[in-house]
Amino acid sequence: MALTFPFAAIVGQDEMTLAIQVVAVDPSIGGVLVLGDRGTGKSTAVRALADLLPPISVVKGCPYRCDPAKPAGACPVCQARDPKAKVVTERQSVAVVDLPLGATEDRVVGALDLEKALSQGVKSFAPGLLAQAHRGFLYIDEVNLLDDHLVDLLIDVAASGENLVEREGLSVRHPARFVLVGSGNPEEGELRPQLLDRFGLSVQVRTPQDLALRVSIIKRRDAFDKDPEAFKALWHKDNQKLQKRILKARDLLDEVEVSDDMLMLCTRLCQQLGTDGLRAELTLLRATRAYAALQGHKAVKAEHLQSMAPLALRHRLRRNPLDDTDSGARVQRSLQEVLAA
Amino acid sequence: MALTFPFAAIVGQDEMTLAIQVVAVDPSIGGVLVLGDRGTGKSTAVRALADLLPPISVVKGCPYRCDPAKPAGACPVCQARDPKAKVVTERQSVAVVDLPLGATEDRVVGALDLEKALSQGVKSFAPGLLAQAHRGFLYIDEVNLLDDHLVDLLIDVAASGENLVEREGLSVRHPARFVLVGSGNPEEGELRPQLLDRFGLSVQVRTPQDLALRVSIIKRRDAFDKDPEAFKALWHKDNQKLQKRILKARDLLDEVEVSDDMLMLCTRLCQQLGTDGLRAELTLLRATRAYAALQGHKAVKAEHLQSMAPLALRHRLRRNPLDDTDSGARVQRSLQEVLAA
Amino acid sequence: MALTFPFAAIVGQDEMTLAIQVVAVDPSIGGVLVLGDRGTGKSTAVRALADLLPPISVVKGCPYRCDPAKPAGACPVCQARDPKAKVVTERQSVAVVDLPLGATEDRVVGALDLEKALSQGVKSFAPGLLAQAHRGFLYIDEVNLLDDHLVDLLIDVAASGENLVEREGLSVRHPARFVLVGSGNPEEGELRPQLLDRFGLSVQVRTPQDLALRVSIIKRRDAFDKDPEAFKALWHKDNQKLQKRILKARDLLDEVEVSDDMLMLCTRLCQQLGTDGLRAELTLLRATRAYAALQGHKAVKAEHLQSMAPLALRHRLRRNPLDDTDSGARVQRSLQEVLAA
Amino acid sequence: MALTFPFAAIVGQDEMTLAIQVVAVDPSIGGVLVLGDRGTGKSTAVRALADLLPPISVVKGCPYRCDPAKPAGACPVCQARDPKAKVVTERQSVAVVDLPLGATEDRVVGALDLEKALSQGVKSFAPGLLAQAHRGFLYIDEVNLLDDHLVDLLIDVAASGENLVEREGLSVRHPARFVLVGSGNPEEGELRPQLLDRFGLSVQVRTPQDLALRVSIIKRRDAFDKDPEAFKALWHKDNQKLQKRILKARDLLDEVEVSDDMLMLCTRLCQQLGTDGLRAELTLLRATRAYAALQGHKAVKAEHLQSMAPLALRHRLRRNPLDDTDSGARVQRSLQEVLAA
Amino acid sequence: MALTFPFAAIVGQDEMTLAIQVVAVDPSIGGVLVLGDRGTGKSTAVRALADLLPPISVVKGCPYRCDPAKPAGACPVCQARDPKAKVVTERQSVAVVDLPLGATEDRVVGALDLEKALSQGVKSFAPGLLAQAHRGFLYIDEVNLLDDHLVDLLIDVAASGENLVEREGLSVRHPARFVLVGSGNPEEGELRPQLLDRFGLSVQVRTPQDLALRVSIIKRRDAFDKDPEAFKALWHKDNQKLQKRILKARDLLDEVEVSDDMLMLCTRLCQQLGTDGLRAELTLLRATRAYAALQGHKAVKAEHLQSMAPLALRHRLRRNPLDDTDSGARVQRSLQEVLAA
Amino acid sequence: MALTFPFAAIVGQDEMTLAIQVVAVDPSIGGVLVLGDRGTGKSTAVRALADLLPPISVVKGCPYRCDPAKPAGACPVCQARDPKAKVVTERQSVAVVDLPLGATEDRVVGALDLEKALSQGVKSFAPGLLAQAHRGFLYIDEVNLLDDHLVDLLIDVAASGENLVEREGLSVRHPARFVLVGSGNPEEGELRPQLLDRFGLSVQVRTPQDLALRVSIIKRRDAFDKDPEAFKALWHKDNQKLQKRILKARDLLDEVEVSDDMLMLCTRLCQQLGTDGLRAELTLLRATRAYAALQGHKAVKAEHLQSMAPLALRHRLRRNPLDDTDSGARVQRSLQEVLAA
Repeated sequence: MALTFPFAAIVGQDEMTLAIQVVAVDPSIGGVLVLGDRGTGKSTAVRALADLLPPISVVKGCPYRCDPAKPAGACPVCQARDPKAKVVTERQSVAVVDLPLGATEDRVVGALDLEKALSQGVKSFAPGLLAQAHRGFLYIDEVNLLDDHLVDLLIDVAASGENLVEREGLSVRHPARFVLVGSGNPEEGELRPQLLDRFGLSVQVRTPQDLALRVSIIKRRDAFDKDPEAFKALWHKDNQKLQKRILKARDLLDEVEVSDDMLMLCTRLCQQLGTDGLRAELTLLRATRAYAALQGHKAVKAEHLQSMAPLALRHRLRRNPLDDTDSGARVQRSLQEVLAA
Repeated sequence: MALTFPFAAIVGQDEMTLAIQVVAVDPSIGGVLVLGDRGTGKSTAVRALADLLPPISVVKGCPYRCDPAKPAGACPVCQARDPKAKVVTERQSVAVVDLPLGATEDRVVGALDLEKALSQGVKSFAPGLLAQAHRGFLYIDEVNLLDDHLVDLLIDVAASGENLVEREGLSVRHPARFVLVGSGNPEEGELRPQLLDRFGLSVQVRTPQDLALRVSIIKRRDAFDKDPEAFKALWHKDNQKLQKRILKARDLLDEVEVSDDMLMLCTRLCQQLGTDGLRAELTLLRATRAYAALQGHKAVKAEHLQSMAPLALRHRLRRNPLDDTDSGARVQRSLQEVLAA
Repeated sequence: MALTFPFAAIVGQDEMTLAIQVVAVDPSIGGVLVLGDRGTGKSTAVRALADLLPPISVVKGCPYRCDPAKPAGACPVCQARDPKAKVVTERQSVAVVDLPLGATEDRVVGALDLEKALSQGVKSFAPGLLAQAHRGFLYIDEVNLLDDHLVDLLIDVAASGENLVEREGLSVRHPARFVLVGSGNPEEGELRPQLLDRFGLSVQVRTPQDLALRVSIIKRRDAFDKDPEAFKALWHKDNQKLQKRILKARDLLDEVEVSDDMLMLCTRLCQQLGTDGLRAELTLLRATRAYAALQGHKAVKAEHLQSMAPLALRHRLRRNPLDDTDSGARVQRSLQEVLAA
Repeated sequence: MALTFPFAAIVGQDEMTLAIQVVAVDPSIGGVLVLGDRGTGKSTAVRALADLLPPISVVKGCPYRCDPAKPAGACPVCQARDPKAKVVTERQSVAVVDLPLGATEDRVVGALDLEKALSQGVKSFAPGLLAQAHRGFLYIDEVNLLDDHLVDLLIDVAASGENLVEREGLSVRHPARFVLVGSGNPEEGELRPQLLDRFGLSVQVRTPQDLALRVSIIKRRDAFDKDPEAFKALWHKDNQKLQKRILKARDLLDEVEVSDDMLMLCTRLCQQLGTDGLRAELTLLRATRAYAALQGHKAVKAEHLQSMAPLALRHRLRRNPLDDTDSGARVQRSLQEVLAA
Repeated sequence: MALTFPFAAIVGQDEMTLAIQVVAVDPSIGGVLVLGDRGTGKSTAVRALADLLPPISVVKGCPYRCDPAKPAGACPVCQARDPKAKVVTERQSVAVVDLPLGATEDRVVGALDLEKALSQGVKSFAPGLLAQAHRGFLYIDEVNLLDDHLVDLLIDVAASGENLVEREGLSVRHPARFVLVGSGNPEEGELRPQLLDRFGLSVQVRTPQDLALRVSIIKRRDAFDKDPEAFKALWHKDNQKLQKRILKARDLLDEVEVSDDMLMLCTRLCQQLGTDGLRAELTLLRATRAYAALQGHKAVKAEHLQSMAPLALRHRLRRNPLDDTDSGARVQRSLQEVLAA
Repeated sequence: MALTFPFAAIVGQDEMTLAIQVVAVDPSIGGVLVLGDRGTGKSTAVRALADLLPPISVVKGCPYRCDPAKPAGACPVCQARDPKAKVVTERQSVAVVDLPLGATEDRVVGALDLEKALSQGVKSFAPGLLAQAHRGFLYIDEVNLLDDHLVDLLIDVAASGENLVEREGLSVRHPARFVLVGSGNPEEGELRPQLLDRFGLSVQVRTPQDLALRVSIIKRRDAFDKDPEAFKALWHKDNQKLQKRILKARDLLDEVEVSDDMLMLCTRLCQQLGTDGLRAELTLLRATRAYAALQGHKAVKAEHLQSMAPLALRHRLRRNPLDDTDSGARVQRSLQEVLAA
């Protein structure tokens, strides 16, 4: 409905816009957590996301918008269909689902369809926001304010790619693969380590200190607020370019090579930083691959690792009370040591 | 129903009455927060607001009172209408919606229309107070007493201009652009920084110390209480003048220029005061523009900045434990330095 | 139903009985708060109130008992009536509504009429205790024990004179002008300053120390308990005299003059005592006027101010940790200084 | 149903059995609070109460068992009856209503009659335990364990003698005059002073220390448990004697004189002990009168005062941190001083 | 359904098995509390209880299984029956009702029969677990984990032998005499003294330290788990012997004499140990009598007292901070002194 | 639905995969608790479980999938069947039921079948997750996050092998024998000793420190994520081998001998380590027997004890504040001493 600020017109928050593009290339990297000051355009950037995403191919009539290319992970509706019948497909724009603060658990996970229950006396499932977000993005503004219980639930589903509903006598399981995008302000309460670990990438945003840059941001925002349609038209071409770049990178993705040396570098870096488990390495592998594809390269190089390491690892470090260096700097320092070794 | 005290008859609270007029000229400035002692006429002033507001043009029959000039941001009802049909318009007075203390979340955001559900068996949406307040004002007396959850929700809607309802199996999204006006007494509990930041302007009201002024206020109040109708008639002309001044300022608003120097001054001031993000600058830009328009000027000048800076910035300063100067004074001091530079 | 102890038979609590008579003359003074020891007849005095109140003129058949003389503030029922039709009036006794401890919010503010909803399928409003108390008194025994939320709600309505109900899909606004009378024991928990400020007058009751007086009180109480009807008959004439005195004072009220000097005295007194806002002055103005009327005077004099100042101001002083004088004494001392100035 | 231990067979708890007989003579004395060790027969004694109470005369068919002699305090049913019709009366045994721990508020105060609401669609009132207890006794075992809210409610009703129900759209007021009898163990949580003050008399029970007495109690209890009917038959005559003694005392009650000197003694005693308000004196006056009647005297004498003063005053003393004498002893000491004066 | 481990095959927990047999002889002794380490077979022993209990005679068709020999304590159903009609009886096995952790209060005390209410529109009572347990055993595993409120309720019913239900507009009273058997681990939270006092006997179970005994217990358990039916068959005869022994003891019970000297010994012991009230003595009297009957004796002797005193008194001692001797040892020490005196 | 990672392809977590195979051979060993770092494949391993389990024989049409070979422990449905009719059987795959975080108690234990209740007006039981898990596995990810109440309930059912439902007027008892598998991270809150004790075996997983191993794990995971079907096909044979090995071990299980010397060794070890109760020995007995069968041995030897002792005992040790050795090492040390003795 409401027009969103064009992604291409965002200035001064390069790390955040890069991270969003990288997960748009490979959603399996996991979610993006955007941390930082109030009023730095966190929400604006995430809401601008829809501009970047090329439409997807879906099974026509499927309420969960299943991928015609992956019958294995299909929803209950698609599984109930005659396997011999030909699947009709259509293209739909990618969902960027907003989780409003007042959302109740039943709307999030889905619930008994009351209307049907009352009028026809049958127990059927009304899909929730998790179903709507399948194959798209689920955005939570101020993830700190969300109920712990709901956060655990979302992370659980995001990790397994399935929504398993056992309530009100219903027992439903449907695919729910989405990228969780959260924004938050660490000053309003620290996030739990388990939560942090579940986001693929994290970025920090700060109030820009360059005066000219600030004036330019304000001018663009004021122009958009005065006449959103004219402003969007002005930036349409640039947005299209971004979208094409992402589509190209997706096509390239499967061809991008990660050499064993590069993989060993990733592992050494993670071991040196002492990240728990192997999720960090897996994310780093994927993020560098996606970034290389975005740059048009067919092999992951040290430069890709240098760009992605802070985003993929920063939020996975254990707090070291004797070392108050910024965690991004700690990642960079270790990376230099590993590269030099 | 009950007659309200005429706005024009308010004396002794100049900052508060100025702030209300400024946001009446440009509602996009954001809400007004009125802080201060008990019994200083905070509620009276806000309730007197309705006197100032000229009627608006709405789509006839639209339950959300959509603006015929902005089809893009239209409500579900207007979007469902035949786009080729001619839009009939009418004028309605601006809403000043009162959020009573006992209001439940479902009445605020809207809810399932129980009457229809029970009688006709259909699930339809009954709009709430947020819908009523669209294109008007939403007033919360004693914002400190409101449930945190409800406050977050209101601020979220006020910021996005949309009300997104996901509950009881309903999924509705409608425009809800309103000015949030809150009154509170800081002695009854500090307000959270995130909350403060969301109000465009803030004003402080204190018990007047001038004895003659006090006597005059009491006399006017006593006269109003004894015979409200006679008192309102007495002040009708003055109220009309205020309304015309606001209408004129609105017409002028688009023509008011803000020079790059002036914009740079705003930015410098905010940077020096260390406000988070860029919301402060954006608000200052709009407030000075609206104030200039109210004064009949076509360009923003230093005097406008001097009047508006305390209102727009005071509540956005971080507490400095080594400097217990009043925050309004800190804004003025920084402004002098910036102007002198 | 149950017979109440006759007001005229109350002895030994002069301040309390005076305050009740003063607000009976001018209800716009606001509520009366009765503070003090257990077992000092607080409840008895308030329940005896009904004896004092002359009947009022109401619109016949109006569920809110609207005043035929004030069509402007009429209820939804009266507003829906044909404006040209002649209004039939009748006299009804004034309501003294008791708020029982177990009362639920829906009974207090009113709620959906379940009977109609279930039998006829229509959503209509069943008025609550606030509607019943309109143009009368609402009595809360042990105001300290009442739920904070309910207290805020009552005070909000008492201040605005309107009950605005937004719940269960209902949106109703009706007049609810009543005098709040509360009793409480400060030993069972301090009252919040905001609450105190909302009561027009406050009185302190203590266990009498004069032995003969105590014996006399017990004898009267014992006599009443043994045979309430006989006891009431005995005091009927005295009660009638009190009622007539109040009626006379009401007629006189509009003629009572408050000179500018007297008003300035009130303001000076409040300023010297540092009361917040101007509610104290306004109350003092009205209380002295009502007391003068009760005494049969057409002008407010220093003696009236001396009687009313402690009742109107005592509960509005800020606690001064260096001065543990009783607050009533502080009011009297300031008054002497102001009168002497 | 289950047979109760005969009152006359209780040994070793003289203060408790005396207090119960005194309030059986004059229920307006107020409730009895029984405090003490576990396993000392508190519940047994109170449950034995029913043996003592002579039947009462009630209006036939009245659900609230109104007293035919007091039409003024009649229930809604009796008030709705034709005042000219002759009232038919019958005798019923006095109610000793047990408040079980799991009792919900709606069963205590009464509630909407769901059966009628569902089957006939009419809103009618189903009386609760308070109505059942009218003109009888309401017994709460372990009053400490009762929800504070319910305790306040019971005390409020016990004090006013009326049950005022405002809930679920009902508004009912019916007489509910009963004697509250509570048992509790101070070791399981102190009782609030306000609660204590509302009980007319209080008694302390302790584990008897005399070995022969203990053996005798156990033997009686064992005999009762083995064959309750035989045991009851054995004590029937003694129980009958107790009942006649109470009936006689009731007849005598109105004739018992309390001289002004005696009244002055009561007042002086209360003043010296510093009890709050005048409830203590009123209770003492009534308790001595009832005790005198029970003894067959037509005038209250010092000996009656000496027996009743500890029961009526002990629980009304303020805790004196410098004087840890048992409160019963403090009452006795003051009484000696007052009598000697 | 599931087969239980045979009682006779339990080894190494003699105190526990003795206590269970004693209350099986005389249920009026009160409940048994089994305290001790995890994994010591507490639950196994209690669940094995059903093996021990001979069938009882009940009124045919009575939902509360009333005792045909005791018409006085009959249930509402039996009381409503024609008193002249002949009572038909039948034998039923004794109930050992399990209170599952998730049990709701309405299932425990009984509730409105929803099925009847919905289908036939009549309000009738559906008996709960307390009714099922009448004349049997009610077992609570991990009594520490049970909600306090539910514990109070169970104890209240167990003490009075009646279940009095006042909820949802129902008012039902039915007999509920059962033996409460609870198991718990004191390390998971102390039990309240009031709770302890309500159990007739308490036993301590510990992990056996004898290696051969441990091996034997494990072998038996493993054999039972591998083939429960074969194992039960193996122990059937021994179980039958135990049942006959209990039946014989019951017949003998009324003939067992307790001399006055023996009674005095009990009382002295309790006084010396300072137990509150007389419940301890009453329990001791009954437990020694039942134990004597179990041993085939017609008179209680010192040896019976020595066996039963620790079980009946240990959990009733007040904690003595200066004496950390095990409470069982304190009982034995006092007993020696009393016997020697 | 979603394909799971093949069990055979798991590398680097040998203790965890061994424990899972051992309980697959003998489910009566009890649950497995998997503790350790985030991202170490805990969930992956448990979800891979389904690959290992050979299908079971069930009574055709039985909703609880009863074992045709064990009529004694049958469900209510099987018990209601004609005992003379021939039982038809079928093979079904073993259930691996996932307990989702948002699961409500009624879905876990089963509840009133609302659909039947509303449409046909009959009260019937809709089985829950506990019924689904019968004869299979119940998996709880992040057992620390589960509500305490639900954990107690699950453990209670897992221990007794029966689900006893007493709620909403239902009273159902059905078999529910399953292996509880839980994963958790001790850093996110310690588990209660009672909970630990109920799991048969526990394993610790840590982030592997060998770089080559880490790279190999990541490569396998990345290969699976890119093309799950191809990857599963690749590992199919290895998975089949594992399944056959388990089937063979099950057949062998009853023949495996545990000598009295070996049993005495188990008992000595447990006594020396001071485990509470005898559950530890029983588990050790069964685990060594199952492990011997898995190895193809017909007698339990010291080597089997050495492998299983840490898994069976580690989580049952009491914390020794003076000895911070890892609990696994403490088990090994005691085992050496016992073997050497």
